[in-house]
Amino acid sequence: MIIDCHGHFTTAPPQLSAWRDRQVAAIGDPVNAPRPEDLAISDDDLRESIEPHQLRLMKERGTDLTIFSPRASFMAHHIGDADVSRVWARVCNDLVHRVSTLFPGRFAMGAMLPQSPGVDPATCVPELRRAVEQLGAVTVNLNPDPSGGRWTAPPLTDRSWYPVYEAMVELDVPAMVHVSTSCNPAFHTTGAHYLNADTTAFMQLLQGDLFADFPDLRLVIPHGGGAVPYHWGRFRGLAMALGRPDPMTLLDNVSFDTCVYHQPGIDLLTSVVPSRALLFASEMIGAVRDVDPDTGHHFDDTRRYVDATPGLSPADRTAVYATNAERVYPRLQLPDSCGQPQQVTLPETRFTGDQQSALIGPDDHRNPLKRVVLTHTLHLRPPLGE
Amino acid sequence: MIIDCHGHFTTAPPQLSAWRDRQVAAIGDPVNAPRPEDLAISDDDLRESIEPHQLRLMKERGTDLTIFSPRASFMAHHIGDADVSRVWARVCNDLVHRVSTLFPGRFAMGAMLPQSPGVDPATCVPELRRAVEQLGAVTVNLNPDPSGGRWTAPPLTDRSWYPVYEAMVELDVPAMVHVSTSCNPAFHTTGAHYLNADTTAFMQLLQGDLFADFPDLRLVIPHGGGAVPYHWGRFRGLAMALGRPDPMTLLDNVSFDTCVYHQPGIDLLTSVVPSRALLFASEMIGAVRDVDPDTGHHFDDTRRYVDATPGLSPADRTAVYATNAERVYPRLQLPDSCGQPQQVTLPETRFTGDQQSALIGPDDHRNPLKRVVLTHTLHLRPPLGE
Repeated sequence: MIIDCHGHFTTAPPQLSAWRDRQVAAIGDPVNAPRPEDLAISDDDLRESIEPHQLRLMKERGTDLTIFSPRASFMAHHIGDADVSRVWARVCNDLVHRVSTLFPGRFAMGAMLPQSPGVDPATCVPELRRAVEQLGAVTVNLNPDPSGGRWTAPPLTDRSWYPVYEAMVELDVPAMVHVSTSCNPAFHTTGAHYLNADTTAFMQLLQGDLFADFPDLRLVIPHGGGAVPYHWGRFRGLAMALGRPDPMTLLDNVSFDTCVYHQPGIDLLTSVVPSRALLFASEMIGAVRDVDPDTGHHFDDTRRYVDATPGLSPADRTAVYATNAERVYPRLQLPDSCGQPQQVTLPETRFTGDQQSALIGPDDHRNPLKRVVLTHTLHLRPPLGE
Repeated sequence: MIIDCHGHFTTAPPQLSAWRDRQVAAIGDPVNAPRPEDLAISDDDLRESIEPHQLRLMKERGTDLTIFSPRASFMAHHIGDADVSRVWARVCNDLVHRVSTLFPGRFAMGAMLPQSPGVDPATCVPELRRAVEQLGAVTVNLNPDPSGGRWTAPPLTDRSWYPVYEAMVELDVPAMVHVSTSCNPAFHTTGAHYLNADTTAFMQLLQGDLFADFPDLRLVIPHGGGAVPYHWGRFRGLAMALGRPDPMTLLDNVSFDTCVYHQPGIDLLTSVVPSRALLFASEMIGAVRDVDPDTGHHFDDTRRYVDATPGLSPADRTAVYATNAERVYPRLQLPDSCGQPQQVTLPETRFTGDQQSALIGPDDHRNPLKRVVLTHTLHLRPPLGE
């Protein structure tokens, strides 16, 4: 079982961007704004946008399930106002929900939020609830810089973000901290802004005390944590200088993904960050789509690096590929080996002593996709992966 | 011979910050602005600020010479206007010049520039010339974001920066690309802004064609290149996607320093970046001053990591510790083994064929410290370091 926790719908049918162009053109001109129902994308369109692309690569690479959210660079929260973002988030979320239902067991939905610069993040909570409760999202993408490279929002530890965190904790979904397109010419979107945001977010968390207020909150920092694991000694030293706990303590609540596109980078990541805080991911088909001429394989075929890295034991690799994701994304509905959704019911006798007893069986949560809570996954199935 | 290419005057006598406070308080009130000559710091004050701090640590760690510039976080180009920056740069540069003359052979001067947000970088050229020609600076610090975390300046490839580059090439000095204090609450200065700037600058260079216009321009990206070496595969893939040459080609003009404060980070750096593009540095006494409880040594004692890394051969290590710096900073006046400035005159017969012939002997350059050009250093002395 291999779960890729970081995929975006980068191959959406062109009707989507055409609809967005009309929406942007109609900013300030609501009479000409397109309606969500004007977007005509058939199920066959969706299949054609997925099967020869993400699904083909998943099969080639042996990835079972991808957590799949709207295209990050298209979120573009800096465009228009909160109402523009509200409609756009709804359209994009509905589309990835359809993908997740067309390919059950292959794609689990992640949602975007209708953020807007200078607008109270609490305004995102209704769409967050809709995405999780009605569409089956298992996570959301949270943009720490809805201004698109101007960085006008307060740090993630600011109380203005708390209504989002409260809803996340209540709904038991994590967030991936992920910016969108940079409209600042200083920052290339995928070459600078994405990595900078990862580093920035981690440092904000190091400076603050967010997880004292939200001990159950879980955040995923993508792209291998930006610069953080490479500079782990710096962050440890800064924590000491600031009178903060060692950054390792943040890893009870923060995970890094493995979107690092060469072997030495993955080797560094796995040597520095404990496996419990690593989630397998590729972000394919994303920023880097070419074949590395030195290896003959795609840069973003991160499974090769994770398989080859000496920093992971077989048990570590199982954690990185699957069981960590089951813990971080408890709403994940996991397929069995035939690729079909699995309903797990275990004999209660497997759990003894202080182990939790009430974790078995489907839990509806008003979710159209039945939810299975797997907090003791190592008891629930044979070792995965390898 | 070990050259540390990245030191700042972080231990300047308190009179300096008091003078700066008066200068900042008098913004908009020029009558009460302090004059540069109001700053009273004696030579003994300077010795006391250096000997028990940087010089003690240099001796303990076996570093021979530090390239020493004004404190990066104090540059604060976002404060006041170009005139405020002009006077402040002059004061700070004069002070590091005095340090370099009080400790000959131990500290070589780096200069700050009087940048100011929204102001033409060409206005920095007179202070750049003064620092190099009159004060003996061997390099300058170039701030890609004088706004202090708002990132309002155009990329480093923009033609507005060209007058600075033209002067640098004419004077044969490199620049370290180094931001200053972040006044943006999203960015911790040393935990996010510095690293983000390194990543951002490299990506700007990857997108542009700066070194086609300035083949002799040399830039140093500090803090181990920010996130770049850790994500080297990403940058290679992005270069392909953008139709740009492999990022390795940038390393003819760009060097990374070794300010990465743990062994795995240095191991990654030396395994990914060829030694010709690495410059030893510690940035001590800087952002991270504590002792790593896991090792019992200072986090910023980078010599330990560079000595221990398997990624460098003895010849590579010599390059990283010294000979690369001689190439990147040709105005460096190198001490002999007794710590005194060295005047090197070689028999011309050592050079034959297509080797340069006019490189021997002091070259004044209107520099009060005599300059020795050592472009064939491997001929000039026995192997260094180790």
